[in-house]
Amino acid sequence: MRVIAILSLLALAAAAPAPKTPTEIVAAAPASAWKTIPADDLLVMQLASGAKVVLQLAPAFAPVHVANLRALAKAHWWDKASIYRVQDNYVVQWGKNESSDPLPAGVVAKPPAEYARPLKGLKVAPLPYPDDYAPRAGYTLGWPVGYDPKGGTANLTHCYGYVGVGRDMAPDTGTGGELYAVIGQAPRHLDRNIAVVGRAISGIENLSSLPRGTETLGFYKERSQDVPIAWIRLASEIPAAERPSFQYLDTNAPAFAAYVKARANRKDDFFIRPAGGVALCNAPVPIRPAPAG
Amino acid sequence: MRVIAILSLLALAAAAPAPKTPTEIVAAAPASAWKTIPADDLLVMQLASGAKVVLQLAPAFAPVHVANLRALAKAHWWDKASIYRVQDNYVVQWGKNESSDPLPAGVVAKPPAEYARPLKGLKVAPLPYPDDYAPRAGYTLGWPVGYDPKGGTANLTHCYGYVGVGRDMAPDTGTGGELYAVIGQAPRHLDRNIAVVGRAISGIENLSSLPRGTETLGFYKERSQDVPIAWIRLASEIPAAERPSFQYLDTNAPAFAAYVKARANRKDDFFIRPAGGVALCNAPVPIRPAPAG
Repeated sequence: MRVIAILSLLALAAAAPAPKTPTEIVAAAPASAWKTIPADDLLVMQLASGAKVVLQLAPAFAPVHVANLRALAKAHWWDKASIYRVQDNYVVQWGKNESSDPLPAGVVAKPPAEYARPLKGLKVAPLPYPDDYAPRAGYTLGWPVGYDPKGGTANLTHCYGYVGVGRDMAPDTGTGGELYAVIGQAPRHLDRNIAVVGRAISGIENLSSLPRGTETLGFYKERSQDVPIAWIRLASEIPAAERPSFQYLDTNAPAFAAYVKARANRKDDFFIRPAGGVALCNAPVPIRPAPAG
Repeated sequence: MRVIAILSLLALAAAAPAPKTPTEIVAAAPASAWKTIPADDLLVMQLASGAKVVLQLAPAFAPVHVANLRALAKAHWWDKASIYRVQDNYVVQWGKNESSDPLPAGVVAKPPAEYARPLKGLKVAPLPYPDDYAPRAGYTLGWPVGYDPKGGTANLTHCYGYVGVGRDMAPDTGTGGELYAVIGQAPRHLDRNIAVVGRAISGIENLSSLPRGTETLGFYKERSQDVPIAWIRLASEIPAAERPSFQYLDTNAPAFAAYVKARANRKDDFFIRPAGGVALCNAPVPIRPAPAG
């Protein structure tokens, strides 16, 4: 009898396994579901304090702006630049504020408005929940997107940690010399109004924990408050031994779909009522350091 | 001819005035649209550093928890408490972590799960855009809510700066001795799973800019890293001359509806493409210091 009872319990456990958390689903994803980010798509920002932030660039969405960023990095344009704006629940902004230094060769002074790209050619995994800022939302090439099946466009979105190109009033687009990262509630109203060029994939806490600026829009009042940047380089310029390497979870992989579903239906021990939905920026694309070897 | 031309220009300007920004709409709201927050609904947290954070309590949504918070404040329970958890893009948490101090008289040790309240009796101004976390979203009594017209419930939402009651695994609800504030993308999946008791209405940047904890879930590793709190008091306990006073914009006032509409359709000089929608947590209820006199 005892053996049968045990078998019954085992059968029961097999029938109703404990639901996996999003973290567990990501940890169990096969190696084939992870894509290594090219070293030319990683921009490393070293603060004078020693803290590091790694950005992933998005050439599939803003190719001219990304080419500008690569040219600025290669010219060491940002050496001794600074962070000069920290606005709570909004953005951290850095670069060479009001600099009159000439732009390095190869930098396009007036880039096109790369605020959206053709939807054609993209395999989008749709988010099966409504979005307030685009007709549809989903994921493609490892990025969250708003998209418009009728208009045939797709755009990167201003989620936490996402990086855009500072600009003046429209129709100026900005060279890329001044960048900002989101450090609060996703300001999705900026989507399709500014070029999003990438996201922080490591060290965003070194930006989000900086003292807030007290001037309008969070600018620091005194230049002495600016947070000095030692340098910004492409990972491809950094010696191999020190070069960071990261992977993102393929947004078309079954593991990613399972992760999003679990984010929308949290059932682990802490939760009482799963939401049954999730906002695009609340199911961030999983990133991990590339495994050694 | 010249006079006529000028008049025509004036007529044109009158016909198509520059669209007002959300900030301009709020600034132009009549005094009658502003509601003063009772001093018993304001909890003032003074950090040992001198920085201050003011919280507004929500007795209409979590009356037993709010009564606990008032009793804890009056007993000076939090004197020399600390902030011991700062998790990037998530929460700052404070209180008397793992304290064995007895609870003050009047504090309910096991409060009911005040995660939602009856919709009945509330006049909700609906947000005319979809929500991923509740059947409907809107505003009532100066607060954002998710609500379920069928189920007849309404719940406060985890927007930036919103404050909830730390708890252990379900069905524990927490006394209120440990509180957290949201410092990142709204973790709306926590809605209806934890008691939301209020929001930071002043000084949230003093929490969001703290160093992140490096342990799991953002706990500080060493007790020496904890950020000391000098005291937490109800505003009603503070001498009148130093007592803070704030007002919120009546969420049923026409000015509030105009504000939300403008947040969803940004048309000022910077913007090229208005979104045509806004997420609940991206149209925060306007708060201002109460005018003198």
